[in-house]
Amino acid sequence: MSSSEHYMFGPYKINQNEVFYSTQLSYAFVNLRPVVPVKMYELIHYNNGVNLKSCFMREVKRFVDLTVDETSDLWLTAQKIGSQLECYHKSSSLTFTIQDGPQAGQTVPHVHVHILPRKVNDFKNNDEIYDAIDEKEKELKQKLDLDKERKDRSPEEMSQEADEYRKLF
Amino acid sequence: MSSSEHYMFGPYKINQNEVFYSTQLSYAFVNLRPVVPVKMYELIHYNNGVNLKSCFMREVKRFVDLTVDETSDLWLTAQKIGSQLECYHKSSSLTFTIQDGPQAGQTVPHVHVHILPRKVNDFKNNDEIYDAIDEKEKELKQKLDLDKERKDRSPEEMSQEADEYRKLF
Repeated sequence: MSSSEHYMFGPYKINQNEVFYSTQLSYAFVNLRPVVPVKMYELIHYNNGVNLKSCFMREVKRFVDLTVDETSDLWLTAQKIGSQLECYHKSSSLTFTIQDGPQAGQTVPHVHVHILPRKVNDFKNNDEIYDAIDEKEKELKQKLDLDKERKDRSPEEMSQEADEYRKLF
Repeated sequence: MSSSEHYMFGPYKINQNEVFYSTQLSYAFVNLRPVVPVKMYELIHYNNGVNLKSCFMREVKRFVDLTVDETSDLWLTAQKIGSQLECYHKSSSLTFTIQDGPQAGQTVPHVHVHILPRKVNDFKNNDEIYDAIDEKEKELKQKLDLDKERKDRSPEEMSQEADEYRKLF
């Protein structure tokens, strides 16, 4: 990624200083706004860094369209990130979700895994977290669409958070 | 699996005629009660069929404890099952979720993926489906605990449904 300034998330650009882990096939970045009271991370499939500047970059919309290597890499990466961030946030469980297609709540048409460290009583009703994920997914898209994505968290704050997580890997 | 009468799901037995797909490392079975109005399937990691009768069978509680091969197999299987059942149910999206640990809503301590084919307006509020998953997860455990698991769906009905899905693979 050293030769590129950003990663692609569907049609949107994600600044590389918000990315805290990557492989040849996947990258993880800090969310624009955490799901209060827990943190949410996005793990994205991408083809590879070399292609980021190419118009041939493959945007994979649905989970079924990933190759065997891409599917394995995405979930092995999710496993690694989940484990480290659960420990870092002193939490005790993890929620992993793919909203695979618009009827499942996907708003950005690019395969991605939501990873959320969970704690006792982080939500009054355990499943309120999914409403929060859904809300944040919509907000992320709106903000990227409107190019207002820096309203709630500064680039510095997000970059600092990503710096902190990079040390874990 | 021909030499065994059941698969293990944590401490519980799942009859093999409710299982519609399996690999050396994972198996999929029809849920005791569908999440109304959508169907829900459980994809379980297990060590392998040979070990089912052994007291050494490995029950993996958390996602992080799966090996590389197990993680890959579980998600490649989820991908395959999701694709076939989305088509079979004429749906247009899929929800994939792991409740990884008790604070994420896991009640049976054995790594499993929920796979749910989704349709337009299947739930008034998209995320109501997670309340339904949570409810069914608790019910499943209670019913297995109480050995009353045949109250709502007959073994014949579940077996017939599994027979139908086996033809897809």
